Amino acid sequence: MKQSKLFTKTQKDALKDEVSTNAQLLIRAGFIHKEIAGVYAYMPLGLRVLENIKKIVREEMNAVGGQEVMMTTLQPKDIWEKTDRWDDAKVDNWFKTKLVNGTELGVGLTHEEPIVDAVSNYLNSYKDMPFAVYQIQNKFRNELRAKSGLLRGREFVMKDMYTFCRNHEQHDQEYEKIVATYYKVYDRLGLGAITYRTYADGGIFTPRFSDEFQTLSEVGEDTIYVDEAKRIAINEEIYTDENLAKLGLNKSELVAKKGIEVGNTFHLESKYTDALGLYYKDEKGEKQSIIMGCYGIGVSRLMGVIAELFADDKGLIWPEAIAPFRVHLLSLNQNEKAQEIYDALNAAGVEVLFDDREVNAGVKFADADLMGMPFQLVVSEKNMRDNRVELKNRKTGAVEYIPLDSSEIVKYFQNK
Amino acid sequence: MKQSKLFTKTQKDALKDEVSTNAQLLIRAGFIHKEIAGVYAYMPLGLRVLENIKKIVREEMNAVGGQEVMMTTLQPKDIWEKTDRWDDAKVDNWFKTKLVNGTELGVGLTHEEPIVDAVSNYLNSYKDMPFAVYQIQNKFRNELRAKSGLLRGREFVMKDMYTFCRNHEQHDQEYEKIVATYYKVYDRLGLGAITYRTYADGGIFTPRFSDEFQTLSEVGEDTIYVDEAKRIAINEEIYTDENLAKLGLNKSELVAKKGIEVGNTFHLESKYTDALGLYYKDEKGEKQSIIMGCYGIGVSRLMGVIAELFADDKGLIWPEAIAPFRVHLLSLNQNEKAQEIYDALNAAGVEVLFDDREVNAGVKFADADLMGMPFQLVVSEKNMRDNRVELKNRKTGAVEYIPLDSSEIVKYFQNK
Repeated sequence: MKQSKLFTKTQKDALKDEVSTNAQLLIRAGFIHKEIAGVYAYMPLGLRVLENIKKIVREEMNAVGGQEVMMTTLQPKDIWEKTDRWDDAKVDNWFKTKLVNGTELGVGLTHEEPIVDAVSNYLNSYKDMPFAVYQIQNKFRNELRAKSGLLRGREFVMKDMYTFCRNHEQHDQEYEKIVATYYKVYDRLGLGAITYRTYADGGIFTPRFSDEFQTLSEVGEDTIYVDEAKRIAINEEIYTDENLAKLGLNKSELVAKKGIEVGNTFHLESKYTDALGLYYKDEKGEKQSIIMGCYGIGVSRLMGVIAELFADDKGLIWPEAIAPFRVHLLSLNQNEKAQEIYDALNAAGVEVLFDDREVNAGVKFADADLMGMPFQLVVSEKNMRDNRVELKNRKTGAVEYIPLDSSEIVKYFQNK
Repeated sequence: MKQSKLFTKTQKDALKDEVSTNAQLLIRAGFIHKEIAGVYAYMPLGLRVLENIKKIVREEMNAVGGQEVMMTTLQPKDIWEKTDRWDDAKVDNWFKTKLVNGTELGVGLTHEEPIVDAVSNYLNSYKDMPFAVYQIQNKFRNELRAKSGLLRGREFVMKDMYTFCRNHEQHDQEYEKIVATYYKVYDRLGLGAITYRTYADGGIFTPRFSDEFQTLSEVGEDTIYVDEAKRIAINEEIYTDENLAKLGLNKSELVAKKGIEVGNTFHLESKYTDALGLYYKDEKGEKQSIIMGCYGIGVSRLMGVIAELFADDKGLIWPEAIAPFRVHLLSLNQNEKAQEIYDALNAAGVEVLFDDREVNAGVKFADADLMGMPFQLVVSEKNMRDNRVELKNRKTGAVEYIPLDSSEIVKYFQNK
C-alpha cells in the first residue's frame, strides 16, 4: 500500500486521558481510535494486526478440530436465568438493553448459555461427542474502570471455544489437546518464552484448578509465582501450602512476577448443560450429563500486550507474524526507483507499505520507527550512488545493504 | 470436512414461529440458530456462506481503493447529539445501554458520526482527499417487528463505506466508481440479472436522489418500477410525473415489481462533517466543507435473499461462489473408496463435505438436497461396478458420470 493514500497519519501526542503505553503508541501511530475508555476502533493498520492475530488463532483452533461459529451479541434473558447469571447482583458487568416492547436483552459478555442452547438442537447421543465449537467475536463487559488500553476493554475481541464430552476421560483428552495448542498460538505470536501456563481458581462448580496463560509484564494486573525450570506458574489467588503440595510445586523454586492473562481454560463440568436441560443418551439409552470445557484467548488484548512489550522509545516493534506490513519502503526523493521495487515486492507477495509521501527524510524515519514494521528498506540518492538499498531491522537496529536490483531485493525477502 | 464430525444436523421442521422461507430452510439445514426474532447465530455451514459473501464484498471494496476499518458497537452520545440523531424521537430504532456510572451509550446502528469523528484525527488538507473507508460489521436496529429471517434483522452484518471528497466533482467521480463496483458484487453473487439500480429518496439534506440496489422478489417489501431495457428502476416513494421527467423515464416503459433492497448509496453532502466540525484547508489555506457519500451492502441480508430465491421444494441451492463447500461427497456404504476421493479433492484444494455417516442412502440424498452444495458426488456399489462415480448438479438436476479414478475426478473439478 502507498502511504500517501493511507487516510491515517501519525500524531505527535496521544490523548491526554490515555495513560496506557499500548494505547498511547497505537493511537500516535494511527492504528486505533479511542471511542470511549476501553472502547477502541481499529484503523486500517490496526485492523491488519488484529486480523493477523485472528488468523493465527483460527488456524490453530481449526487444526485442533474446532468448528467455527458466530454467536449473537443480543442475548435473551431466559437462558441466562436458567444458570442464575442474569441478575446484576450475580453478574455485575452486563451491558443490558431493551426491545421496543420493553423486553430486556443482554449484550453478550460471554457465550456459554447461548452455545449450549444452540448445540441442544443437534446433540442427542454419545456418538455425537466429543466436539469443539469456537468463535472469534466482540464481547462487551461493563467494567467500572478501563484505563489499560487494549489490555482491558469494555468492547473487545475474544476467541472463545467450548468442548462437549460424554465423560471426564474424554473431556481431559480434549482439554489437554487444546492447552497444547495454546502454546503454539503464543509461540507463533512471539510470546512463547514469556508466557506461562498458570494454575488458578477453577470456580465454584468444579474441584479442579483452571489454567491461565500469563504473559510476564510489569503492567500485568495479576501476581503469579513462576517455576522457571518447570515452565509453570501458580496464581496468587490459590497460592496456599495445601495447593502447592497438591500441584507438586516447591515454594523455594517459585519467583513472584507480574502477569497479564492472555488466555484461560476452564473445566465447566456439567453446570451449564444440566442447568439448560441438555443431556445425552448413552449406549443403553440412558440419560447422562455432558461435560463441558471452555477456552478463551484475548485477541485484542494480545494486540495490546505485544504493542506494550515490543516497543522502545521510538515506537512500536511488530513481530513479523502479525505486522501490518512486513516491509516499510522509504523513498527519499527517489520515487521512481522505489516504485519499481514496490511493484516487484507486491508482485512477489511481500507485503509492503511504501512511504511515497512528499515529506522530508526525518519525518519518514520517525514515522517508520513509530509504526514499527519489521524491516525498513531505504532508497536514497546516496544509496543509489553506491548501487544499493539500505535495510534496517526495526527490532535490532542492524543495517544491511542489498544490491540495487528489484529481483535481488525480492529474493532477499523470499529467502529470509 | 467429514459430516460425521460436523456438530450440526438437519432438522425435519423449522421453529413454529419462523414464518420466512429463508430462515426456515437455513434452520432446517443447520446453517443458523434463532436466538430471538431477527437475531440469528451462524453455525459452521452458515458462517462459511457469510464469510464467502464478505470475501467477495471485501475484494471489490479493496479493488475500488476502500480502506478497511472496524468501528465500535458501543457509541458515545455526544457525537450523535451534534447531528441530532441521538434522541429516540428522532431516530426510533436505537438500542441503548449504560455504563455502570449511568452514562448512556448507543449500540451502533450505523456509523457516519463515529467515522467522521475518527477521520477528524487525520484529515486536514485538500491533499488528503479523496478517500474511501469501509467496514464489514454487525449493526443493531431495534425493529418493531422482525419476521423475515435474515432479510430484516435486529442484529445483522453490513458493509458500510464512506467517502470523503473536497468538492462535488470529486465526490461524483468516487460515487459512480463505487456504484459500478456494486454491479460487480451482485454479478459475482449470481444476482446481477435480477438486481436493479433504483432511484430513491435522497433524504432531507440533499436535492439528489439516492440509489438503491433492488433484487426482484415476491417477498420484497418495496415496490419499484422497472425499465427493463434501460436496466434501471425507480422506487414507488418518488414515483411522480415530475421525477420521471427529471430521470428521463417513460411511464409506459415501466413495470411494477416487488424488490428487496440489497444495497444503497447516498449523497450525504456536508451534513455530517459540518455538524461535527470537520473541514479542510484548500490551496489558499481557506476552510472548506467536505462532501461525503455513504454506501451500504446488506451482507447477511444477501445470504437470506440467496437462500430465499435459490431454493426449491427440496431445499437450498447455493451458487458456487458462496457455497459452504463446492462438492458434497456421498458415500453409500463405500467409505474406503470415498475416503480416497475425499483426500484427493482436499489435497487439490477442492472444498468438499464428505457424508461418511452411517445412515441410509435416502437420508443422505435428502440432507444433501436440503443443504444445497452445488455438486453431489455419489460413490455407491452400483456405480463402482460400472467403474464410475455419479455427479448430480443440485441446481439443474443433471446427472453426469466420471470414471472412478481420483485424479480424473480432481481434474473434472479443476477444469469446471
